[in-house]
Amino acid sequence: MLKSQVTFKKEYLVVAQNVSGRNLNVPVYRFKSNVAGPKVYIQSSIHGAEVQGNVVIYHLIQALQSAPLKGEVILIPNCNPVGSNLKSGEYTLGRFDPVNGQNWNRAYHFDQASLDQFIQQVDENADIKLLKARFREHVKQGIDEVLAREWGVGLAQQLNLKLQRFAFDADIVLDLHNGPVSTRHIYVPEYARESARFFNIPHVILIPNLFAGALDEATFCPWWTLQQQLTDKYPQRDWQFGVEAFTVEMGSQEVIDFQAGQQDAQSILSYLSAKGCFAEPLYTPQNMQRHTVYLKDYKILFSQVGGIVEYLAKPGQRVKRGEVMARVLNIDELEDKRAVSEIKAPCDLIPILHFPSASVLGGTQLYKCFTQYFEL
Amino acid sequence: MLKSQVTFKKEYLVVAQNVSGRNLNVPVYRFKSNVAGPKVYIQSSIHGAEVQGNVVIYHLIQALQSAPLKGEVILIPNCNPVGSNLKSGEYTLGRFDPVNGQNWNRAYHFDQASLDQFIQQVDENADIKLLKARFREHVKQGIDEVLAREWGVGLAQQLNLKLQRFAFDADIVLDLHNGPVSTRHIYVPEYARESARFFNIPHVILIPNLFAGALDEATFCPWWTLQQQLTDKYPQRDWQFGVEAFTVEMGSQEVIDFQAGQQDAQSILSYLSAKGCFAEPLYTPQNMQRHTVYLKDYKILFSQVGGIVEYLAKPGQRVKRGEVMARVLNIDELEDKRAVSEIKAPCDLIPILHFPSASVLGGTQLYKCFTQYFEL
Amino acid sequence: MLKSQVTFKKEYLVVAQNVSGRNLNVPVYRFKSNVAGPKVYIQSSIHGAEVQGNVVIYHLIQALQSAPLKGEVILIPNCNPVGSNLKSGEYTLGRFDPVNGQNWNRAYHFDQASLDQFIQQVDENADIKLLKARFREHVKQGIDEVLAREWGVGLAQQLNLKLQRFAFDADIVLDLHNGPVSTRHIYVPEYARESARFFNIPHVILIPNLFAGALDEATFCPWWTLQQQLTDKYPQRDWQFGVEAFTVEMGSQEVIDFQAGQQDAQSILSYLSAKGCFAEPLYTPQNMQRHTVYLKDYKILFSQVGGIVEYLAKPGQRVKRGEVMARVLNIDELEDKRAVSEIKAPCDLIPILHFPSASVLGGTQLYKCFTQYFEL
Amino acid sequence: MLKSQVTFKKEYLVVAQNVSGRNLNVPVYRFKSNVAGPKVYIQSSIHGAEVQGNVVIYHLIQALQSAPLKGEVILIPNCNPVGSNLKSGEYTLGRFDPVNGQNWNRAYHFDQASLDQFIQQVDENADIKLLKARFREHVKQGIDEVLAREWGVGLAQQLNLKLQRFAFDADIVLDLHNGPVSTRHIYVPEYARESARFFNIPHVILIPNLFAGALDEATFCPWWTLQQQLTDKYPQRDWQFGVEAFTVEMGSQEVIDFQAGQQDAQSILSYLSAKGCFAEPLYTPQNMQRHTVYLKDYKILFSQVGGIVEYLAKPGQRVKRGEVMARVLNIDELEDKRAVSEIKAPCDLIPILHFPSASVLGGTQLYKCFTQYFEL
Repeated sequence: MLKSQVTFKKEYLVVAQNVSGRNLNVPVYRFKSNVAGPKVYIQSSIHGAEVQGNVVIYHLIQALQSAPLKGEVILIPNCNPVGSNLKSGEYTLGRFDPVNGQNWNRAYHFDQASLDQFIQQVDENADIKLLKARFREHVKQGIDEVLAREWGVGLAQQLNLKLQRFAFDADIVLDLHNGPVSTRHIYVPEYARESARFFNIPHVILIPNLFAGALDEATFCPWWTLQQQLTDKYPQRDWQFGVEAFTVEMGSQEVIDFQAGQQDAQSILSYLSAKGCFAEPLYTPQNMQRHTVYLKDYKILFSQVGGIVEYLAKPGQRVKRGEVMARVLNIDELEDKRAVSEIKAPCDLIPILHFPSASVLGGTQLYKCFTQYFEL
Repeated sequence: MLKSQVTFKKEYLVVAQNVSGRNLNVPVYRFKSNVAGPKVYIQSSIHGAEVQGNVVIYHLIQALQSAPLKGEVILIPNCNPVGSNLKSGEYTLGRFDPVNGQNWNRAYHFDQASLDQFIQQVDENADIKLLKARFREHVKQGIDEVLAREWGVGLAQQLNLKLQRFAFDADIVLDLHNGPVSTRHIYVPEYARESARFFNIPHVILIPNLFAGALDEATFCPWWTLQQQLTDKYPQRDWQFGVEAFTVEMGSQEVIDFQAGQQDAQSILSYLSAKGCFAEPLYTPQNMQRHTVYLKDYKILFSQVGGIVEYLAKPGQRVKRGEVMARVLNIDELEDKRAVSEIKAPCDLIPILHFPSASVLGGTQLYKCFTQYFEL
Repeated sequence: MLKSQVTFKKEYLVVAQNVSGRNLNVPVYRFKSNVAGPKVYIQSSIHGAEVQGNVVIYHLIQALQSAPLKGEVILIPNCNPVGSNLKSGEYTLGRFDPVNGQNWNRAYHFDQASLDQFIQQVDENADIKLLKARFREHVKQGIDEVLAREWGVGLAQQLNLKLQRFAFDADIVLDLHNGPVSTRHIYVPEYARESARFFNIPHVILIPNLFAGALDEATFCPWWTLQQQLTDKYPQRDWQFGVEAFTVEMGSQEVIDFQAGQQDAQSILSYLSAKGCFAEPLYTPQNMQRHTVYLKDYKILFSQVGGIVEYLAKPGQRVKRGEVMARVLNIDELEDKRAVSEIKAPCDLIPILHFPSASVLGGTQLYKCFTQYFEL
Repeated sequence: MLKSQVTFKKEYLVVAQNVSGRNLNVPVYRFKSNVAGPKVYIQSSIHGAEVQGNVVIYHLIQALQSAPLKGEVILIPNCNPVGSNLKSGEYTLGRFDPVNGQNWNRAYHFDQASLDQFIQQVDENADIKLLKARFREHVKQGIDEVLAREWGVGLAQQLNLKLQRFAFDADIVLDLHNGPVSTRHIYVPEYARESARFFNIPHVILIPNLFAGALDEATFCPWWTLQQQLTDKYPQRDWQFGVEAFTVEMGSQEVIDFQAGQQDAQSILSYLSAKGCFAEPLYTPQNMQRHTVYLKDYKILFSQVGGIVEYLAKPGQRVKRGEVMARVLNIDELEDKRAVSEIKAPCDLIPILHFPSASVLGGTQLYKCFTQYFEL
């Protein structure tokens, strides 16, 4: 067996410019092997308050320094310096641009018309490797055209596109997030559902081929579309591109935990091992239950009333229809039975995350829940 | 001529519930004539910092108290008590829900599938008045179904739908807004472009039949779709429903001006006069230039850099390609020529509004501009 | 023994007016016995994110409905409707006025000159009960004069003074708060240190006779000053007024817990029992260690650097000098030893609370700690 | 006459560290002459939304490049990179630390006890120049001790102290600010009132020797105290130190204007000319009225109600007692006379600034006004 030589490089990528006129950059860590293998892209904290992914990347970098890597791994921690640095009160207002409400994870590039155009020109006998390379260039050229627009580009979009240029070169893309108060879960494109078994993550959401702006979708939707359309057109050939992308939700926002981060890193290394990123597997996945839903069955439970809430149902716990999930205190009726009202589960479900504050207006997302779930 | 009798009524509509568990309501002012005429719905301040519309409604109510009204006018000032009350620093953070970034003017109801279903059942010889009534019931039932969902509804959507239930009953819907630092302008559905002549507003944006979540679209898109599909299906009949909806931008946010508000009210009364809302016209439109663009030519100029900006091009002013629109100060190079950089017009244009703060990050919307504009 | 008759009354107190021009009121719950006894005032949530006190008041009200009360108890839950309703992102920006940064618990009334003037006129043989009544009137008149100022009064001050008018009538004032992530602790004026034994609260901070704006100080400083100056002037008499005031910190902000709230209520009822508020004691205090510091030894540990922090030292835990309290991740040096730096205890201490977010700028209050603590 | 040689130098001063763990620095521009003269320190934008001072510094630097300077001028534009970069909505939340409400201009160093101690050791015959140098070292050592505290220092204090180290070396300190919507005005220590004639600023506030945390006070209070105490102690000597400090308010926040900035710069150069900073005067002060008040007569007019406000009285305009200064719209009573209420001037006054938003809660600072004003 050939011994792999791994080169390590650290660069800085400018992703934005602040009010002081200063460039904001992020570190880009790169491990590259002389042995061929998949190209991997991992980023964390596109939502500024979701910081555990930075710890996971720390542990990944520790592990990669001595791992028998094949291919290449690029890691960008803390990839949104604008969002990370937005304190409002003691917390981090990191999910959207404070100027216009734009979610930091919704402005990646996807251009259906340009895809269609590309696909029309693909030959039945196209070499897969060359086709992949050409497709990458095509999509990245589209990104560059947006970035070069004479009228300019919005902040979130700029930030997203500069990251996406790296991500779209990769075969494997992991976007590390956190929920508010949350158990670990993962978003998986339906075509890659088998890969969910390689992560040690007990809750899996299967998502369809629909682009809604996020990095995972911006990565897999083009490839999935390419595969589907070529299969329709040339059904006799097996069109497989081997590109996968996941949003991995590493527990709760606003906290970090080094020990949990080490386990999160092992879970990712287990997946990368299964995908052939190492000369020999570093970790194997745990034998565990993986509760799974289709995206349409991943439901939001809104508060009907405003008030102060105790969250009784804990993320990850199975709840039966009719069980009390939360209690709301009514400060105007503290002397009688109307003081406390109960919010009950509309069906059997598993709460995956809940709102991080006891204080809610009517219409707040209290819980996001698995319904109609099944084992993978 | 029969003298009209006008009844005045004031009610309160609960639109949300706050953290204290208290209902938040808004006043609903209603003028109803015993003489038949169009039904009009006017609201203001769905974006909390855009307050001039409240002054306009004040002047409208003054005028309506002695006007020979036909039909009915419903006015809801300050229709978003959550957004209005969100101070962050000295300003009002009123454009989106501070919890999740949801724009307060993007969660109205529009259900294409349900429209298609309704239209399929329309008879070629349907009575227009009855058809309108049935269509209204159909759409409002759709709204009610959303509001009654077992899992609940988000705050912005709740607020929007409760208002839309009133608006969808109307033949004329005016949603009063402001820009950041802005000249007066109006969004007009392409099919109703002739109506733009009845307002004293010098800048007109023609918008297509595409729903993007706002109240004007949520009002006219269903009717426009109904008209188009019935015309396609039964081309021999002239399908006209006479429903119009406009977003009217009354100058700059964060300020009110009673005198300007009186003129704004007269502009609206001039339009309502033309639409037959009064036994005799109250006002006639001014003879004026109306610069007009298609929505696709209403362009955003983003800052390419971060810094501190002087806005030289004023809203409403004609700017030639290459003219300097803004200057940006670079605090790191104050001793040499790089201290001040210039932002130039990419083409001939009219700036309609600009960002309200001198301090911008790269990727900020500096200006929104009319390009390729023409006279109405 | 005479059986006490307790009357219950609920009123609403207007404390502010919002941007919509609407009065904001709070409920005032009042239990009054026909048997003489101390007058008690309890409020919660002057800081909007500190909501557990509302649950405690709920449990107190439950208990008071059947308790053999002497005297009177007034309870105002959720006493700051402005602060409670200020969401910024998912959290509540409740500690200060978002317009000007004014802490909601720093604008109570205290007028040293007016106190001095009053005290000069006190006679050596003054009847204590009458003196107390006259003093209350004097201070409340001062409050009323501020509220009636021709030029108006700031929002936080208005809110504070309207509440203080109730509080200054009381013999016992409890202001229920929460820390960020916090263990239970209590602020006690040095002269009332023995009363700390009546609460089941393991951490006690003894504070001097210095007014810094908070309700507890605004309550006890005048009485303490009165007592000290009269004792200086007429040392032969024992000047005791029996007024006590405490800020009680009921754990962490942004969460409520009904079960813990019941224990918090019992702790308060145990104190009130000891103070003769009931014909027979409802609860007796637990036998427990009460770690105590002087305010000067209650120290803030600031972060020297910015970064992402894991809080290892938990509130309430004893920490030895030199032990690692927190770890900070440096995203720029993830590949070597500088990746993680440690923050060590500068001396033996007990962390009482820590910052609620992992993301900190340099100069953030990481921990507040008991140093030089002793047993009460 | 000896020709002055001026050296120019630009350095960067680290003033804070952000959540990404990165140093935030500010540029320090330095002009130093080989001819002796006063040492001048000028900073701008300690409040992040008050940006006009940066333009003024730009024009000052342009002028200093060819001016016959004596002594030294240090200029630090945009001196608070944390505050400048805090967008909340479209505006800049720049007046206080968003984490804890701490005003960015209230944490400078002043230690009365340490001053007293220093003054006790001053000899009657002390050489003024040596005394000044020793005093500077003494105060700066106090600053360094705070910065070196084992438990760390808060963010605003760190930032303030790092700037104050530069400022306390200077004979002349100018802190450039803006009001909300404001006319130009200047804060002047009472002892330096004659210097107000050298600025072209029509509104002058005379402030006493009381430290409230701001940079101007932190500069002049120690010197004033030194002078007063030495004069008390050794009345036969004339103790003059020639140190002056001013807060200069350059119009309204959130806007910049290069042309006005040039005039502001000329006003400052006129003052510096009068103080002997140039071999020959660059500018002489304009002949103009200078309305002046004592700080106690600079009064805040609070809104008694919440609502939407039109500001009729413009900054700088003379208003007679009883004149209407503002109108408030009441959205609940638009149909009758209660729709609009008026706020009247409580006495003859000049409004200097008003609140920058039409939307106010009850208790908002509507106006700050000169009352009892006189000509300088």
